[in-house]
Amino acid sequence: MLLLPKIGTYSFVSEPFHCDFKRQLFLGALGTQMLNAADFHSNDRNFGIHYLLPRHKSWVLSRFAIDVLRMPTAYEKFSVSTWVENAMRYFTNRNFEVISEDDGQVLAYGKSIWALIDTETRQPTDIFAVRDGDISNYIEADKKTPIKNLSRVKISDKAVKTSEIKTTYYDTDYNCHINSIKYIEHVLNLFPIEHYKTHNVKHIDVAYVAEAHPGDILSFYCEEDADGSTLVSVRKHNSQQPEEIEAVRCKVTFVKI
Amino acid sequence: MLLLPKIGTYSFVSEPFHCDFKRQLFLGALGTQMLNAADFHSNDRNFGIHYLLPRHKSWVLSRFAIDVLRMPTAYEKFSVSTWVENAMRYFTNRNFEVISEDDGQVLAYGKSIWALIDTETRQPTDIFAVRDGDISNYIEADKKTPIKNLSRVKISDKAVKTSEIKTTYYDTDYNCHINSIKYIEHVLNLFPIEHYKTHNVKHIDVAYVAEAHPGDILSFYCEEDADGSTLVSVRKHNSQQPEEIEAVRCKVTFVKI
Repeated sequence: MLLLPKIGTYSFVSEPFHCDFKRQLFLGALGTQMLNAADFHSNDRNFGIHYLLPRHKSWVLSRFAIDVLRMPTAYEKFSVSTWVENAMRYFTNRNFEVISEDDGQVLAYGKSIWALIDTETRQPTDIFAVRDGDISNYIEADKKTPIKNLSRVKISDKAVKTSEIKTTYYDTDYNCHINSIKYIEHVLNLFPIEHYKTHNVKHIDVAYVAEAHPGDILSFYCEEDADGSTLVSVRKHNSQQPEEIEAVRCKVTFVKI
Repeated sequence: MLLLPKIGTYSFVSEPFHCDFKRQLFLGALGTQMLNAADFHSNDRNFGIHYLLPRHKSWVLSRFAIDVLRMPTAYEKFSVSTWVENAMRYFTNRNFEVISEDDGQVLAYGKSIWALIDTETRQPTDIFAVRDGDISNYIEADKKTPIKNLSRVKISDKAVKTSEIKTTYYDTDYNCHINSIKYIEHVLNLFPIEHYKTHNVKHIDVAYVAEAHPGDILSFYCEEDADGSTLVSVRKHNSQQPEEIEAVRCKVTFVKI
């Protein structure tokens, strides 16, 4: 059987109504297209949710990091290449490379870790039990990305609560959980608009710890890291579960323009 | 000089990470692609913001209505056709037709009104002064859309304040105003997630009354219309301007699934 190439490449446009006041694509919109590319890549190779959902399995994003070299500007065409770096029993690493189709520059790199879960028990399930471990035929271990390896995002108990939001319909994804990218948007919304006049996001590293659901209250606890980055712990609670539980932990690094 | 066709048609995909838990494209995401199509159409014909902004002019959305027949489902390809129905001195009417590229069904219709403004004075400016009124060569008056004509969205002083939000970085557009579509998302977020399990949006009609800016507080005043629709007045204020001013008025109609 003829296999598709290990690396899948998908084209997008930095649409003007997804751009911020600097005429740059919002990081959340770039992240969404990276996740869309991951979805297309896995479906095209028969280990995506089209195959999995009827079998009560699904991919769940566990870690996601983006290293931004230059954000796509309004109307710029760009491609997202994505591939599986390796696969273990319960987790798989997927990388990303974003390239401008206008000038050929690398715009961003990404790394992610996904768990395969049983959608009924919500427990991890064996990746190699899917299509006799066919995913192994798509592992591309040689292509390197210069983004540093994912490391544990540490946050101390000195983090200070800076805001709180109630999640809504527009925060949800097609699994009726809070959308992975919406956490990034809410974290970036912690910074005032003035900050974005003088700063761009250079790096974001997100650990998805527990799933939140629409109606949950998200509280944002912030702390400055030794390197000047901001660490954010996003904790969820609701009327049935009044105690706060960490949903997401994240580190965001800005660069001065 | 050879003119482009009056009607411009642009293809999009209902990307899975822009879909809700019903695996349907979010209405906000559809609205964004309609505005992107309007932007592409006007730029392609040399009366878009590429031509206008260096001349200190810009289009400002004044009215936007969407009539939904069926929302695109996840992965569905669809096209947005758009054209100028007519142009007056200060306003132009632009229509939309959204068609599935998978099954050919009409998915939605749209109507909009745009003002041309001087970006320095923020005052309306003469549309026919742009390229000697070249827009007149693109008026497509014959193609009809079955969406009813825009009518004044009325709201009484009995409307009740139901929520308030502070606008943030992710609410802004590339003009550093609150993004037209974000108002739609905030209005649809007034309804609990349970409502969307049994209802779809059938029609939304938005009047953009005054521009809001990031940091402004938006208050949402709601009232039920005689036909069962919900009327929403979105009022803005901030520390410099503590008195509430109407920014947006809107009517949203749901249909039971």
